Amino acid sequence: MTRLKKILLDESEMPRQWYNLTPDLLSPLNPPLGPGGKPITPEMLAPVFPMNLIEQEVSQQRWIDIPEEIRNILVQWRPSPLIRAYELEEALGTPAKIYYKNESVSPAGSHKPNTAIAQAWYNKQFGIKRLTTETGAGQWGAALSYAGALIGLEVKVFMVRVSFDQKPFRKLMMQTWGGTCIASPSTETQAGRNILEKYPDTPGSLGIAISEAIEAAVTDPTGQTRYSLGSVLNHVMLHQTIIGLEAKKQLAKVGIKKPDVVIGCCGGGSNFAGLAFPFIYDKVNGADIQIIGAEPFSCPTLTKAPFIYDHGDVAEMTPLLPMYSLGHNFIPAPIHAGGLRYHGMAPLVSAALKDGLMEAQAIHQSECFEAGLLFSKTEGIIPAPETTHAIASAIREARKAKEEGKEKVILFNFSGHGLMDLVGYDKYMTGQLSDYEYPESEIASNLEKLKGYPLPR
Amino acid sequence: MTRLKKILLDESEMPRQWYNLTPDLLSPLNPPLGPGGKPITPEMLAPVFPMNLIEQEVSQQRWIDIPEEIRNILVQWRPSPLIRAYELEEALGTPAKIYYKNESVSPAGSHKPNTAIAQAWYNKQFGIKRLTTETGAGQWGAALSYAGALIGLEVKVFMVRVSFDQKPFRKLMMQTWGGTCIASPSTETQAGRNILEKYPDTPGSLGIAISEAIEAAVTDPTGQTRYSLGSVLNHVMLHQTIIGLEAKKQLAKVGIKKPDVVIGCCGGGSNFAGLAFPFIYDKVNGADIQIIGAEPFSCPTLTKAPFIYDHGDVAEMTPLLPMYSLGHNFIPAPIHAGGLRYHGMAPLVSAALKDGLMEAQAIHQSECFEAGLLFSKTEGIIPAPETTHAIASAIREARKAKEEGKEKVILFNFSGHGLMDLVGYDKYMTGQLSDYEYPESEIASNLEKLKGYPLPR
Repeated sequence: MTRLKKILLDESEMPRQWYNLTPDLLSPLNPPLGPGGKPITPEMLAPVFPMNLIEQEVSQQRWIDIPEEIRNILVQWRPSPLIRAYELEEALGTPAKIYYKNESVSPAGSHKPNTAIAQAWYNKQFGIKRLTTETGAGQWGAALSYAGALIGLEVKVFMVRVSFDQKPFRKLMMQTWGGTCIASPSTETQAGRNILEKYPDTPGSLGIAISEAIEAAVTDPTGQTRYSLGSVLNHVMLHQTIIGLEAKKQLAKVGIKKPDVVIGCCGGGSNFAGLAFPFIYDKVNGADIQIIGAEPFSCPTLTKAPFIYDHGDVAEMTPLLPMYSLGHNFIPAPIHAGGLRYHGMAPLVSAALKDGLMEAQAIHQSECFEAGLLFSKTEGIIPAPETTHAIASAIREARKAKEEGKEKVILFNFSGHGLMDLVGYDKYMTGQLSDYEYPESEIASNLEKLKGYPLPR
Repeated sequence: MTRLKKILLDESEMPRQWYNLTPDLLSPLNPPLGPGGKPITPEMLAPVFPMNLIEQEVSQQRWIDIPEEIRNILVQWRPSPLIRAYELEEALGTPAKIYYKNESVSPAGSHKPNTAIAQAWYNKQFGIKRLTTETGAGQWGAALSYAGALIGLEVKVFMVRVSFDQKPFRKLMMQTWGGTCIASPSTETQAGRNILEKYPDTPGSLGIAISEAIEAAVTDPTGQTRYSLGSVLNHVMLHQTIIGLEAKKQLAKVGIKKPDVVIGCCGGGSNFAGLAFPFIYDKVNGADIQIIGAEPFSCPTLTKAPFIYDHGDVAEMTPLLPMYSLGHNFIPAPIHAGGLRYHGMAPLVSAALKDGLMEAQAIHQSECFEAGLLFSKTEGIIPAPETTHAIASAIREARKAKEEGKEKVILFNFSGHGLMDLVGYDKYMTGQLSDYEYPESEIASNLEKLKGYPLPR
């Protein structure tokens, strides 16, 4: 056995610092804006997040130490394996070498615990006792519940009602880890009660759930509750960079100085950023690396949206963020990759695209599920619907390498497994899956409503 | 960070041979018996299994080479990590060092692919094109479908109807890997049609599904179909011993010459055997190791059943096997650990118990789910209901070590994750879970029916 399938790192080789892309952007990051279009100050965020995370959010420091206590928990599954996709390469007949970073090995099954553990730990350090958050399909709520169990924090998750009813298993994961999961809108918050009064039968939405989670945090009279977000924000991107930093060490172990192509799927941006930002650092410093964000064709934030200031949520509770956005009232088509159904994009990822440090591809879900099936039958692991977007993009690049006869190194992020999301595969296999057109007129009318908003530089 | 959470092996350190316990038993294994009470010959098994696996089934050789082609697939997830349960130890306040072998990292989520890959490969080598099997909750059907996809064999799974209807996700896993999964009883076999005629609304049973799978294999006119079994048989135990062989190397890496206690949960016996047999080898050669099989209180094969000859299935299709058995008509109570609901026990495990090389513990499912919850909240991974039996036993031993003030090394097999089995946790957490009494009179009346069967030595 001369070939090596999995490239492992010892725990002692796990990175000791996270990488912050902010100081390496080609133009400075636009600040988030509050009421009246004025930049948000750290103090204004203090009721929502603990100050130690706010400091990370606005930090200009390139390298930030990972506390040893966090490292001691991350080793429950990290460093994650880097895997050579020999069986997939063979099926494609490509000369490309395909590697994937397997983030599905975490207890919650995705990359989400990388930041959930860190956020829970910083909150605990700051004296916080309870965290609130929202969740759609449940990946993030499960990851934060896991983190709360390990760190010793209560976690309350507002889960969009339609998912709460349709996806009982993710709710059970949260409860198994001791998290409290309630359907949103709920009667526990004023925001929830207002909605229920008007629309008693509403299926809920991520926007409403965010409103409830923030309200539940800031109205706790003891001041010991804070809110936690699983993507979009700078400190979330930061915590995920351990993925790419590990991948660089692992590629070096097999003599690869740099990959030719780096790919991640993009919803809010966190798993993409986690893998890609450390390679963008190399790119800024002269390396020739193609970096691709793969997004759903039906939610084309990176490929079709303008770079503007917009709210992160439907209810306009968040500050205005500088990002590519389809408009915060955009309701994405019901594709199975629930984690990619987001109207905006992390400001750091948006800045990287604007600066030309990355490119984007929009892919229909049928091509993604086809890629997911081929991956399952070759590499064995059944990917999450979100992850299939990265796989489909990697397959496109591998086929291109075949046409060009080039032995490229392609690296992608295997962000999560699909064991809790098999219904999408069933629909694809039984011919019940639809692709959704790019909703040009709907996006235009949503963007129309943002006229008068300030514009980023 | 001085402490080491996960002990890894390089792929080059993965064992190159399986260990066969047969030659090391204190008394020779009783042969399986066919019609008229005569020992089964290899030729009689030829329509059911390929000859290369039959050779393994009857082999007296202690070490059997693992073909390189099988090793090249096993590395998709092997060597599996050996994990030190620091967080669990801390919660228990025990001086014991607890280690677990994490078999949940396989694509199918359990130890089952260790033998599924091997069986599929040997069948393919023998020129077989199709495999049939039965499955209850679906773990084994999923593992064999995964193996079929990788090796290039068609797989047809007869799934007990009640599970087929209640557990659609395991069925979808099989289909995602290209397996065909049909509800049993089906109209595809004579056995199925006979049952359906008499009982059109039957929920099915593992016994019926075995009958259908064997019939579908042996009646294929092309002769290119064989049957595959996921536990009980000697060659299945053999393929699983890679677990314990890896664990020994891993313990040696942290300076542990031998564990004091080795624990696995017992249904048909395969995950227990996989971890324990290599340590039984040491025990036979003088090492002082306590080896414990943990079984459900409601299905007390090892703790309450006699050592007899009995059929492996309800329909009496299989040869008579020398084993501890509650009687092949015994229908275990509907506990959530579906994989442990078996009336018999692998002949090799049975022989080890009879020879005094191991002991057994019977545990109620409420104690097991309590252990599973504690494990989830400390070590992070949510265990399968089957696996919680091994965890509950390990916790008992760790508490005993605390009382005795002894720094014991406890090793158990984490046979699978529980992401597809969360309903049991829900019932436990909401107080809807029942424990089941040991059904003494029912077992006695089932055993009564076996009067006149030959008796093993």
